[in-house]
Amino acid sequence: MTVPEKRVSTRLDPYVEAYAERTQGLKVSAVRALFAVANRPEVVSLAGGMPNISDLPLNALGAAIGDLIKARGPQIMNYGSGQGEQQLRQQICEVMALEMIDASDENILISCGSQQGLDLVTRTFIDPGDVILAEAPTYVGALGTFSSYQARVVHVDTDEFGIIPSAFRAAVAAVRAAGGRVKFLYTIPNFNNPSGVLLSVERRRELVEAAEELGVLLVEDNPYGLLTFDHQPKPALRSYSDQVIYLGSFSKTFAPGFRVGWVLAPPAVMKKLVLAQESATLCPPVFSQFAISEYLATCDWKAQIVNFRTMYQERRDSLLRGLEDHMPEGTTWTHPLGGFFVWLTLPEGFDADQLSARATSHRVAYVPGTGFYADGLGSRNMRLSYCFPTPERIYEGTRRLGEAIAEEAGLRATFGLVEPATAGSQPIGPTRTQSSSGEPDPHLEVT
Amino acid sequence: MTVPEKRVSTRLDPYVEAYAERTQGLKVSAVRALFAVANRPEVVSLAGGMPNISDLPLNALGAAIGDLIKARGPQIMNYGSGQGEQQLRQQICEVMALEMIDASDENILISCGSQQGLDLVTRTFIDPGDVILAEAPTYVGALGTFSSYQARVVHVDTDEFGIIPSAFRAAVAAVRAAGGRVKFLYTIPNFNNPSGVLLSVERRRELVEAAEELGVLLVEDNPYGLLTFDHQPKPALRSYSDQVIYLGSFSKTFAPGFRVGWVLAPPAVMKKLVLAQESATLCPPVFSQFAISEYLATCDWKAQIVNFRTMYQERRDSLLRGLEDHMPEGTTWTHPLGGFFVWLTLPEGFDADQLSARATSHRVAYVPGTGFYADGLGSRNMRLSYCFPTPERIYEGTRRLGEAIAEEAGLRATFGLVEPATAGSQPIGPTRTQSSSGEPDPHLEVT
Repeated sequence: MTVPEKRVSTRLDPYVEAYAERTQGLKVSAVRALFAVANRPEVVSLAGGMPNISDLPLNALGAAIGDLIKARGPQIMNYGSGQGEQQLRQQICEVMALEMIDASDENILISCGSQQGLDLVTRTFIDPGDVILAEAPTYVGALGTFSSYQARVVHVDTDEFGIIPSAFRAAVAAVRAAGGRVKFLYTIPNFNNPSGVLLSVERRRELVEAAEELGVLLVEDNPYGLLTFDHQPKPALRSYSDQVIYLGSFSKTFAPGFRVGWVLAPPAVMKKLVLAQESATLCPPVFSQFAISEYLATCDWKAQIVNFRTMYQERRDSLLRGLEDHMPEGTTWTHPLGGFFVWLTLPEGFDADQLSARATSHRVAYVPGTGFYADGLGSRNMRLSYCFPTPERIYEGTRRLGEAIAEEAGLRATFGLVEPATAGSQPIGPTRTQSSSGEPDPHLEVT
Repeated sequence: MTVPEKRVSTRLDPYVEAYAERTQGLKVSAVRALFAVANRPEVVSLAGGMPNISDLPLNALGAAIGDLIKARGPQIMNYGSGQGEQQLRQQICEVMALEMIDASDENILISCGSQQGLDLVTRTFIDPGDVILAEAPTYVGALGTFSSYQARVVHVDTDEFGIIPSAFRAAVAAVRAAGGRVKFLYTIPNFNNPSGVLLSVERRRELVEAAEELGVLLVEDNPYGLLTFDHQPKPALRSYSDQVIYLGSFSKTFAPGFRVGWVLAPPAVMKKLVLAQESATLCPPVFSQFAISEYLATCDWKAQIVNFRTMYQERRDSLLRGLEDHMPEGTTWTHPLGGFFVWLTLPEGFDADQLSARATSHRVAYVPGTGFYADGLGSRNMRLSYCFPTPERIYEGTRRLGEAIAEEAGLRATFGLVEPATAGSQPIGPTRTQSSSGEPDPHLEVT
């Protein structure tokens, strides 16, 4: 196509010279590559992040949405506002009030899932080479979006209480000293994907103060905040400061298939985001918005969230029990207080990417840790999801994982097949090793 | 925010220094700016492109979708494939077969409306400064998307038979001679938005041949092709060549509120588009896809399209009759054979942007022509939509428009208020002036 430059056209892809530079960084996500295997029925998948929504009130919902089409079809099936339907934006203010956010519907943009919210925010702020700060590890889907806008991601250290404010300050200073432009810090403060870590309330205050002092925007991604097992949602970063762009989602508190998320942003930024949304989709899914609005208006959505918490907590318990029972000495993992994920660190010398094939042959799947870093770390880590399989299957999954690790350890001892990894270990969060007490730490595991 | 460079922070927008370069070209679309006025009930809006979907079988659809939620809720409300649901992609192949396209579901990506399809194609191919060729005039929403990726748009001349192949060749040669990279030609061959023009079948062949010879990709945007008043859909450009990326939509043949469109692309390009979709939204709206799939499977969608054609043809007839009766001498307009739009050219000396306020005071709205050009042309033009109001209202709208023009002409004669426009006239398509015969040209107006 057109003027050949750096790239060479091949018979396999005649368009290779024509693609935009930004496509160079795009790669198949580690999560998707696993799907074909993880979805086989005999495999226990601890890989996916798909919520278990089978307990939703399907009959009531089906009846309500069916009636809505009959009564208001020509409106709810037509084009709508680029910013999103006002009625739903008002209801979203009530949802956010649960996390102490005082917002106006004017400052909310509806997005096609919060993934699209992140895409539009990135599109609005990032020129190629701009720096985005992010937790280490962080959401693989965010790294994909940042890469597609040719951002440079710099990780900020985290521990069991979440992102470390002094590390954030140091990262900003280092980037600026090297002449880089820090556009924002991307953070998942509640039950981080993949680490499961909750940012402490003290840290929230410190982080927001640092951001305001440094003039760095915070992008707060919060799909899991309401799925807190102590039933006490923490105040959002956005509740402390307006210098925060907040990304919300119905995917985990209701259902992902409607693809409805939202962005709460300062008024000036909102104007840009609405234009970006119009250029990207004309308007976010209208029918989905009315369907969710109807759900919020006619069903007891708060009680449903309580149900979800209880259901996910039971599954987390099963996963943690299974890890206690089946992991070899030297393995550590986080003890999430909400959300979907546990972050596990293998003993020294193991490689989670390598182990993946063996795990599959033992009929268990997980996501290797390297996908959650922009810089190649995470080789001894894996993300284990407890959101979808039953507690029994989750427990069985840990048994199989234990078998796979033992087999790998045996081969390693016998044949020296696995090279000891000297880098890439990334234990994080409220961890506990096999050698520690069998009782959970009461400060970290409120049940 | 961060390092101030070219732009200066103001109290109104503290983030002004932080926005990406691409946001500079974003502006509120002329169409949206009109919405607040055009939606007032006393105004006849010939401005919007909103389809009239009140005749859809709402009871059957409501019942079918309600039942679907009850029976398969946990699947249809969860995450889905980034490429889109296979079942719907297979049905889309049947839809495209009506325009002689022989496609496989593997080469289809579902998008959040065909606007998002265009966004993802642009994202995949365009680096800042790359050239996109487009008809003159062309879809305002496409210009917005192209601008957000910092493309340079070069218009290609069209006449009453659509884009002129020799003008396309000349444009490619001129851009290349100046060192530019032509990435693709964007075209709406059927009932172009805004001109209403249909590309002749001879031209289709010539255009595809030229594109293949020149090595230029064609992007064929086809929301209106099935809404042809002669009930004989024309072969798509894609039916002649694989060097075409085809954008399809359910927005005009079913309903826009589901936000489901699609892209048919060569296999290598499809891989890039799926990655782009995953990075943009994870997956397109899942529930919407199942809803449309159910509609296609359980309702007589082909009969519905025939109903739509008849309904829109009646409205077009009303608009054309009204223009005959109310436009002053020297006015010309296109006679569309399908779709939603008539493109009108005012007599010399008029300016459609200026006239807009007067039209509003006469309670009629239209979209001024300049938004449909990247280069400032179109000042004597307006887009008139006949898709939404009733035939009676459409006729009344033309009467009011005639009044507004007469009033403007009177003021101009008396006070010389309006400067004669020397440039910006863009009559196009199968036009007819007030001085010509009252009968439509049978070659152009098959009914």
